[in-house]
Amino acid sequence: MNTLTAIATRYSHKEKFLTNHPVPLHDLEQIAQAALAAPSGVNRQTVHLILLPNREAITPIANIAPTAGITTAPAAIAILTDTTITPQDRTNFEKEDYSAATQNILLAATALGYSSLWLDSPFFSQEAQTAAVEALGAPNHFHLWAVIPIGKPDGDGSRREKLPFAKRVSYNQYGGTK
Amino acid sequence: MNTLTAIATRYSHKEKFLTNHPVPLHDLEQIAQAALAAPSGVNRQTVHLILLPNREAITPIANIAPTAGITTAPAAIAILTDTTITPQDRTNFEKEDYSAATQNILLAATALGYSSLWLDSPFFSQEAQTAAVEALGAPNHFHLWAVIPIGKPDGDGSRREKLPFAKRVSYNQYGGTK
Repeated sequence: MNTLTAIATRYSHKEKFLTNHPVPLHDLEQIAQAALAAPSGVNRQTVHLILLPNREAITPIANIAPTAGITTAPAAIAILTDTTITPQDRTNFEKEDYSAATQNILLAATALGYSSLWLDSPFFSQEAQTAAVEALGAPNHFHLWAVIPIGKPDGDGSRREKLPFAKRVSYNQYGGTK
Repeated sequence: MNTLTAIATRYSHKEKFLTNHPVPLHDLEQIAQAALAAPSGVNRQTVHLILLPNREAITPIANIAPTAGITTAPAAIAILTDTTITPQDRTNFEKEDYSAATQNILLAATALGYSSLWLDSPFFSQEAQTAAVEALGAPNHFHLWAVIPIGKPDGDGSRREKLPFAKRVSYNQYGGTK
């Protein structure tokens, strides 16, 4: 799929996925490869991915975050960072690193014909975070930022409205027009 | 350009740009449109872009951050957020918002045949931040996260090595193999 088309058609699929359409592991690996191709602050490559290629692998996470997507998705990718790689100050780029990698995941999934969702908030609480990192078998110095369900959507999925271009873009200076 | 190709070939161009190859405004607008297509936390759309389509528009920023890219780029995009849209707590997604938008900018630029760079660190200090926001004519409740130089590269540009796939990806659980 053309890059600009993938960027324009990507959307946040908040509804169910088709449970009878598995995501081939090769597709999931291509999506993971896309994530790793994202830039990272000072090239520190803090992101670690855990591929969850079927319901069995996803279920422990679905039990912690029982949302429509995670409870039906045929595949998912958990995005973590190793918090010991960089200092926890302004030169820490874990959030930028994971966000750029996640955006690549969403676009690669779109390009391969899947829907997806940037699902982070269920893992914000300390309780859910600890439970999820443990369920994924990761050492406790890893932080789980998001789990991205991936699959064929069950239905078209809703889209939220975006502000018009002119409200969000200036020319030359803030407020400047063409 | 194919999405996976754009993702794989995008790189951080830290060197000079060709000064005699302007970026048509239409291309810059397509890249901005791509940025706005990125998801944002709770759909709050905190990101505001300022298009800097020529040297005259870029120079005030280049004076603050005189790096190889910004001092030669024929075009650039400044990425800001309006810090009053969301509370400054864990439900603040400005960094995720701007990072996803930036990744789309880098990929759209790549797809259109340009090189680019996620340039953020020159704007970290309070002094540079204040000067840059003022130079861009933005109200002081805006935060400048990055300025992305865009253009045809002067030379191939260097690439930094990435860790192997197997070091950064697990299957089913942390440390799990295929």
